[in-house]
Amino acid sequence: MSLLTVGSVAFDALETPFGKTDKIIGGAATYITLSASYFTNKNNLVAVVGDDFPQEMIDILKNRGVDTAGLEIRQGEKTFFWSGKYHNDMNTRDTVEVHLNVMGDFNPVIPDQYGDCEFLMLGNTAPAIQKQVIERLPNRPKLIVLDTMNFWMDSAWDDLMEVIKLVDVITINDEEARQLSGQYSLVKAAAAIQAMGPETVIIKKGEHGALLFHGTSIFFAPALPLEEVFDPTGAGDTFAGGFIGYLASTGNVSFNDMKRGIIYGSAMASFCVEKFGAERLFNLTPDEINERVARFVQLSTFEIA
Amino acid sequence: MSLLTVGSVAFDALETPFGKTDKIIGGAATYITLSASYFTNKNNLVAVVGDDFPQEMIDILKNRGVDTAGLEIRQGEKTFFWSGKYHNDMNTRDTVEVHLNVMGDFNPVIPDQYGDCEFLMLGNTAPAIQKQVIERLPNRPKLIVLDTMNFWMDSAWDDLMEVIKLVDVITINDEEARQLSGQYSLVKAAAAIQAMGPETVIIKKGEHGALLFHGTSIFFAPALPLEEVFDPTGAGDTFAGGFIGYLASTGNVSFNDMKRGIIYGSAMASFCVEKFGAERLFNLTPDEINERVARFVQLSTFEIA
Repeated sequence: MSLLTVGSVAFDALETPFGKTDKIIGGAATYITLSASYFTNKNNLVAVVGDDFPQEMIDILKNRGVDTAGLEIRQGEKTFFWSGKYHNDMNTRDTVEVHLNVMGDFNPVIPDQYGDCEFLMLGNTAPAIQKQVIERLPNRPKLIVLDTMNFWMDSAWDDLMEVIKLVDVITINDEEARQLSGQYSLVKAAAAIQAMGPETVIIKKGEHGALLFHGTSIFFAPALPLEEVFDPTGAGDTFAGGFIGYLASTGNVSFNDMKRGIIYGSAMASFCVEKFGAERLFNLTPDEINERVARFVQLSTFEIA
Repeated sequence: MSLLTVGSVAFDALETPFGKTDKIIGGAATYITLSASYFTNKNNLVAVVGDDFPQEMIDILKNRGVDTAGLEIRQGEKTFFWSGKYHNDMNTRDTVEVHLNVMGDFNPVIPDQYGDCEFLMLGNTAPAIQKQVIERLPNRPKLIVLDTMNFWMDSAWDDLMEVIKLVDVITINDEEARQLSGQYSLVKAAAAIQAMGPETVIIKKGEHGALLFHGTSIFFAPALPLEEVFDPTGAGDTFAGGFIGYLASTGNVSFNDMKRGIIYGSAMASFCVEKFGAERLFNLTPDEINERVARFVQLSTFEIA
């Protein structure tokens, strides 16, 4: 079934203990659609860039089967830019520069041919814009997944409460789940967030894996223990893209499908961190993905006699 | 098969955000033997207390089938005492007071009838004492598990390197694994620790679960997501006790048995944190333990089509 992703397509400049980059392709929607592209070929993108955004980067998305008809290129304006520097533990980072540029007044226009999308991924952006997207679709998708971050809790709480009511799934990291709910226990936090709207809450814990709260059921997926994490940028978006991409490929949204989706998302995230930016997501093979998923099976499987 | 545990039996005084206790029964060997008592009835203890240690606390151990013939009661001396205060996140704590008392010159005497023990659990204490225990046993046990902590890395590095060479399994938390190995990546840390001696490295990550490195294989067990963690004291020792107690009950030490052992250990630890001190371990039923293990199965199980 078809997937629509709305969010940022951007330039990032990154510095980690392993090195630094100039401007490379980044943005939540970039990671999401690249990751989802390994599961679904109906992969639609709504985003905005400036005229400084190179065609070869758009071609990378197109080559992965992403429909870029909804990617607005605004003449005379510049693409959203973020630069950040990771601390030695790779778990924390400082934002060095942010230039919103075209994202400052992002007005998501949904091409007619995207109107019947059944899976909607709202990448991290202003909650008011996320809500607009839902309102502008002629039919309510079968599954709406929302990503957000602490910045919007601090600056757009009321808007966030409006959009959170309308979605089926929220993906959020552990600290953000605590901030959103006011609860330290993640079990209590998930219940409080479910009461805000979404039946399903996915709490991303980075190197500590991810928790899926679906109704009253809980599933836990580990992160793959890695020798090196080269660059964590985009890992959460890559996870979300693998999750919703897998669900869109099956058309099902049962708890068991969501569990599989989380494993596929975790596998995709484990690739993402192996190179700078989104590069590792440009040319994966099905064999590589299947081998990675098999490692999750080995990592998690036990039998109680 | 028979299990021998060597380590501290102590008084603890605890303060958490949920309340505080006077002197209650504590100590690594207390938690280990109580936890193991649900799996094996050949459960031998070597430890030392002072004459201030109440008979009713010894009776609690005896009632759980622990053989206390190796529990030395030193007249005119006092029991090891530790008091600590947990921070609001329950992940960090400050030591308020430590009085080594009888532990200052602990000289482990192993009763003849313990000599043929097949599973040896060296609870956290001075590495030189842990080594003495191995040397004093007439036969090398089938499996030796060592627990240690950062204090001994700082104060008794050479002794620690001597005993670590002699053991099969080490249990250690993530920060300690990083300190011991000088590696940030837990995959690299485990490999470096394996090179020091133990074929099997178990890294305890508290609320984030536990990693089992066995040769080149890796298994991950989640921690049970809990609404409240009331008091984390002893959770790591309870985990180790469930692990080695389960293995002693089967007599097997294969990777698959160790995986099951880690799940049982995690289940026991999830009880431990529900009440102050070791209280929750006094009177569990097999049904309670089986129900808890079933929750781990639910939490971890997925099927890739």
